[in-house]
Amino acid sequence: MVSVGIDAIEIHTGKLCLDLAETFAPAHDEDPDKYRKGLGLYTSSFPDSYEDIVTMGANAAYRLLERTGHTPADIGRIDVATESAFDNSKPVSTYIAGCLEQVFDTTFHHANKGERKFACIAGTQSLNDAYNWIRAGRNRGRSALVIATDTALYARGDAGEATQGAGAVAMLISEDPSLVELSPQQGYGSADETDFLKPNQQFPSVDGKRSVQVYLARMREALSDYASVAGRMHPDDFAYIPFHTPFPGMVRKAGLLGYRHVIRDTDIEEELASEIGRQPRMEAFDDEEAYLDAVSEYTDKLKGTENYREWYERVIEPTLDISRYVGNWYTGSVHIARASALKHALETGRDLTGKRLLVASYGSGAQAETHTETVQPGWKDEIAMLTIDEQLEARHDITFEEYEHIHDVHNHDISADDTEEFTTPKNEFVFDGWGRMGERQYRFV
Amino acid sequence: MVSVGIDAIEIHTGKLCLDLAETFAPAHDEDPDKYRKGLGLYTSSFPDSYEDIVTMGANAAYRLLERTGHTPADIGRIDVATESAFDNSKPVSTYIAGCLEQVFDTTFHHANKGERKFACIAGTQSLNDAYNWIRAGRNRGRSALVIATDTALYARGDAGEATQGAGAVAMLISEDPSLVELSPQQGYGSADETDFLKPNQQFPSVDGKRSVQVYLARMREALSDYASVAGRMHPDDFAYIPFHTPFPGMVRKAGLLGYRHVIRDTDIEEELASEIGRQPRMEAFDDEEAYLDAVSEYTDKLKGTENYREWYERVIEPTLDISRYVGNWYTGSVHIARASALKHALETGRDLTGKRLLVASYGSGAQAETHTETVQPGWKDEIAMLTIDEQLEARHDITFEEYEHIHDVHNHDISADDTEEFTTPKNEFVFDGWGRMGERQYRFV
Repeated sequence: MVSVGIDAIEIHTGKLCLDLAETFAPAHDEDPDKYRKGLGLYTSSFPDSYEDIVTMGANAAYRLLERTGHTPADIGRIDVATESAFDNSKPVSTYIAGCLEQVFDTTFHHANKGERKFACIAGTQSLNDAYNWIRAGRNRGRSALVIATDTALYARGDAGEATQGAGAVAMLISEDPSLVELSPQQGYGSADETDFLKPNQQFPSVDGKRSVQVYLARMREALSDYASVAGRMHPDDFAYIPFHTPFPGMVRKAGLLGYRHVIRDTDIEEELASEIGRQPRMEAFDDEEAYLDAVSEYTDKLKGTENYREWYERVIEPTLDISRYVGNWYTGSVHIARASALKHALETGRDLTGKRLLVASYGSGAQAETHTETVQPGWKDEIAMLTIDEQLEARHDITFEEYEHIHDVHNHDISADDTEEFTTPKNEFVFDGWGRMGERQYRFV
Repeated sequence: MVSVGIDAIEIHTGKLCLDLAETFAPAHDEDPDKYRKGLGLYTSSFPDSYEDIVTMGANAAYRLLERTGHTPADIGRIDVATESAFDNSKPVSTYIAGCLEQVFDTTFHHANKGERKFACIAGTQSLNDAYNWIRAGRNRGRSALVIATDTALYARGDAGEATQGAGAVAMLISEDPSLVELSPQQGYGSADETDFLKPNQQFPSVDGKRSVQVYLARMREALSDYASVAGRMHPDDFAYIPFHTPFPGMVRKAGLLGYRHVIRDTDIEEELASEIGRQPRMEAFDDEEAYLDAVSEYTDKLKGTENYREWYERVIEPTLDISRYVGNWYTGSVHIARASALKHALETGRDLTGKRLLVASYGSGAQAETHTETVQPGWKDEIAMLTIDEQLEARHDITFEEYEHIHDVHNHDISADDTEEFTTPKNEFVFDGWGRMGERQYRFV
């Protein structure tokens, strides 16, 4: 069976930078540590006035195709995952393909373009659809382009406001991939939940507390489902576990849940037994509430163990490096976490070839998916091409007043036409005003 | 290789009926034949005040599972295709799964739920994704549920107003299917087009003339692309050709294009040569304009031939039977056309087992896809279970004033709470008001 997975990846961050501790916190008269330590966030990215989900996605895809030597004729499928779409009928993938066709000689006229929506998990769903398409033998030797692009905005004053962010991740899905091979096995945890909605609106309505509970409940289901098909897991099975990262603080909770799950019935659970006891088993309890209380108590103790701390620092913490500086990218978030981990390995000289990642995606509403990925021999060359550090360095710092203005622009309250650009675009796609049917138009500058 | 395709299908029409000739035309002071003959439409379906895209989809899916003896545990994937979504984050599939879980003992907690958007083609995209998922061996013996559900509304007075419609099609995609097997081969024709948009709005902005041109241009590309992988086609290859049907008049144009395409280099082209000449070949012309003029002239002549007329009556006309009475269902439209053809065959005693369909889907924005389907031995039993005739018979006829009112309800201008129901729901899911986060809620009555 030929291997199928991610051959290449590119990241594009919004070009403006809001410093949460230095700029956002003082304006809200808040302690900077609420953001730095509580949420685990330092800065967040916003698009400049000429950027949007189309330009960010197109620019990421353009760099991806350029540097890997691919042209539109090599691509049989373009799926865009977003929860920031501005049209209820025409998919963002057609706009992005239209951009790319401005700068390439061939077209995407025989590629299947699509759009997926399911909160933050749609990028992973598109990745899996692309995998299935190749495995089904329908790709005619071509690759798929999967683009996760979002501008995550909350209403001003909303509790989620500090977790905002904007950017795109473009991934090339191919046979015999250079970066990671995907497992055929998947685990799902999914239920009809009302934790995060955008009913006919741009800003979300969020039940923050419920949202955290649902994330953990669905993730637990997905891990169990995965184990039911792939067999029992052990913490040492995985070099890194990239989770969906709405903010790093959420992943602290998810990491602990994951650890508890995978140490069950292993040597590690035995080793820890003398220190904190063994994990409660449902069958030993008369009612579910007592069981859940016991689980909660065990989890608290587990958190304090050296085993867990060492594991978290090694397996989870490195997945958060980029997220801390860009905020939540919704559909792109878990793919940023994977890139962050691989980049960390490259920078610390760790050899990952043949090692496995457990990728744990999540979308409110709600659904979690887990699968594993095996790192391929070409991973170092691939990750070395990432330009995210340079992009972060080049971001333009905005004041709080500038932040309020750009927030209004991207919420379509102020026209981008009436807004000065903070940065100067170069060799990239930019928003270029509206056409005669009210469609957004783009050009390469 | 195990066969994969559509195992079962269910259709749910909106329960209200607007008579275009008797009710709509007089109110607009128009000739009834503008609708009956020009568009090819007699009546259109609208949802009652307690219906929406969730209830229509859930009711179709409920009947499908019930009568095929499936439960949620047998389903590994639920994709909803729609361009009428009311939330920018949470997918319609989660609401539909939530409905179904009210009446079944098992849950969809380990099923992958998703939502696709690309104008009218997303239902076929979801069908193909489900096919790929099974072919990729990731289904664990389970089936996929694909639901195409839409309420197609235009602004009042818009040229498209008479083509409105509302309903859902639910399809079960399985190994060794009872109804049709899908071909691995597909053809795509796809370009970034501005023919039909819904920029942050419910009603579309349409360039009607351009929309027809784009439909035909993308369909031509898709047919060529399909032939490039599946080999040359002949008109006799296909028992029926279900096209996307925004209104039957559009399919008259598409059918002629398709016929011209598939008779090329066949005995039929030769046979017709003495009557109308052979088809123009690009290489015989100095410029494209002259070539296209010649093609247009040939096409006009072809339309008048007995060969074409007989073929159209046999292969295309039967796909329009249902559409004439329900209007445009957007994502469901091409699936209604397939059902209509198979129903026609059953009613006229035609044996279709082993015969092939060429299914030609389209979505504005724009993309066409073609693949073939081979009718399976179980098709008669399956099609005999359709209740669409009874549903059409049971629809409630509305006056023009009632139509205007229900149009406002479904455009969210009037709350459904303030609206009397025209019909009485029974054994079905209904809209049940809003929850504390503004979410739409549903119950089974």
